[in-house]
Amino acid sequence: MREYNVAIVGATGAVGEQMRKILESRDLPVSHLKLLASERSEGKRLTWKRVGTEVEVLGADSFQNIDIALFSAGSEISEEYAPIARDSGAVVIDNSNAWRMDPEVPLVVPEVNPAALMGHHGLIANPNCSTIQMVVALKPLHDRWNLKRVVVSTYQAVSGSGQKAVDELMAQSEAYLADKPLDIESYPHQIAFNLIPHIDVFDDDGNSKEEMKMVHETRKILDLDDLPITATTVRVPIVVGHSESINVELSEPVDVEEARKILAESSGITVIDNPREAEYPMPLNAAGMDDCYVGRIRRDDSLASGLNLWVVADNLRKGAALNAVQIAEVLVRAGLKE
Amino acid sequence: MREYNVAIVGATGAVGEQMRKILESRDLPVSHLKLLASERSEGKRLTWKRVGTEVEVLGADSFQNIDIALFSAGSEISEEYAPIARDSGAVVIDNSNAWRMDPEVPLVVPEVNPAALMGHHGLIANPNCSTIQMVVALKPLHDRWNLKRVVVSTYQAVSGSGQKAVDELMAQSEAYLADKPLDIESYPHQIAFNLIPHIDVFDDDGNSKEEMKMVHETRKILDLDDLPITATTVRVPIVVGHSESINVELSEPVDVEEARKILAESSGITVIDNPREAEYPMPLNAAGMDDCYVGRIRRDDSLASGLNLWVVADNLRKGAALNAVQIAEVLVRAGLKE
Repeated sequence: MREYNVAIVGATGAVGEQMRKILESRDLPVSHLKLLASERSEGKRLTWKRVGTEVEVLGADSFQNIDIALFSAGSEISEEYAPIARDSGAVVIDNSNAWRMDPEVPLVVPEVNPAALMGHHGLIANPNCSTIQMVVALKPLHDRWNLKRVVVSTYQAVSGSGQKAVDELMAQSEAYLADKPLDIESYPHQIAFNLIPHIDVFDDDGNSKEEMKMVHETRKILDLDDLPITATTVRVPIVVGHSESINVELSEPVDVEEARKILAESSGITVIDNPREAEYPMPLNAAGMDDCYVGRIRRDDSLASGLNLWVVADNLRKGAALNAVQIAEVLVRAGLKE
Repeated sequence: MREYNVAIVGATGAVGEQMRKILESRDLPVSHLKLLASERSEGKRLTWKRVGTEVEVLGADSFQNIDIALFSAGSEISEEYAPIARDSGAVVIDNSNAWRMDPEVPLVVPEVNPAALMGHHGLIANPNCSTIQMVVALKPLHDRWNLKRVVVSTYQAVSGSGQKAVDELMAQSEAYLADKPLDIESYPHQIAFNLIPHIDVFDDDGNSKEEMKMVHETRKILDLDDLPITATTVRVPIVVGHSESINVELSEPVDVEEARKILAESSGITVIDNPREAEYPMPLNAAGMDDCYVGRIRRDDSLASGLNLWVVADNLRKGAALNAVQIAEVLVRAGLKE
């Protein structure tokens, strides 16, 4: 069996760490794993298959003999080094926002649009976390009833901003409980025991970039250029697990039982939907898991063909690291790496 | 000036306490305040205008000489005692769910439908917290552009479930941070560092009673029996302050600047809407305040006439105690008490 040399760029970050753990537990045949990060992490040792492995400093010559490079080190690093990695012969799977809307770059969720990988040019983009879990839930519904419009409000965990924001939520919560002053660094405001309707920067129309990512990336992934969609994205004091309240208008009347069955049978989805027994998706049960959890599936009586959904997923795994590794797996299985 | 004897039923609860504080700070002329609660609170002393006042046990004879009775002790108490209070000559303003949808009972938000108080029969209902702040924001938009459909997702604070839930959020948060086992009593699941898409009980269609309250109460208050509206209500680990992501379809194209101006000029609303300077409503700035805070006002480009809003209010004040006191003030001002 062919084995692959894999590099993780941003190996010491929250997503990079998940990538390493996920690679250990899955079937992708890795012959050598190269851990790359900035100079700050030089010499740091991380465990790969129970063996300590030294983190190397990212540089122009980091990608010799690398087959697959998983990037999760921010847009600037991706803009500079993804082309270098690709020109060195690696296929790049990039978790940043740098290349997602480039028409030459496939934007892929393996359960949703694996065919977009055909004829790739060595650079593949991983969508934004909040987009991934939404399109996983929307695709089976679209295939059956045709999407007409989507209204989504998010409840996003702080780990989406990195480990520092997680540490800050913990520190702020402790200070709050002890009635001590809080340090505020990761966000413009206190996040402990608060909500912040502000993720990424704002445009002239008052939409945040995170909201517009959900609009544009969803359209690209579903290949529905004009899909009407509006998003409100909100940071909540949760460590791991993004939640989304999704209101969907379809082109034909929806049978709720059929919708539930279609979703339950779809790859990458676990339906938890027995609210009377207090069973529904929550960040607490999605954290650390691979699937997108879908529940609160019910008719929206304000429309002839409306449906409400509540979708929760681990933003570091399916929202980032897992999806990137799954893209690599599809490439290898489909022989699209060579 | 005529003064009034006022009773608070449920005086020791979270909302009852707010009612007492709000009465102290406003203009309603109170000659005597009677504090009523269950036997558990018998003999407890609370402060009214700097003087200790004994809590009395609620009974059938509690309402002699009471002009205005503010109830906030749950539906069962209201069902039993509100008619008794009314028959004793008091006007009852009831914060429970018991009478809200009774066609004989006005359901009132003073900024929105004060005229509904005309010809009341001595019993007036205070809407649900999540409904009040939404209709305060919707009414000025409806007056200008006619509401066509509303999609709302909520982020509701634990104080809506009473002081015990607040104490539990604090205790769970402390235990979580100390890596100790958590006690779970107020909700079916841990609420610290978690979200629970479950408020009140569920119906056969999978909607929660809280969601259907938002639908039916909004229609009644706005006098729009057929207004299409769908709600998803979610409990979040916040102490005070409900937030709502509201998507509105109007009958005519909306000018966002005009919408912002109309909202800013409306009674009971403060607009905070400068997201580039990180200025928007949050539970942290709404807690303890009287107004409904509205921000993130922007076009919803998925519709010809769509608008997104983010509305935050103190669920114990405008969502409950303040609105009840404001109803009493309107009654007195309009001479509708006699």
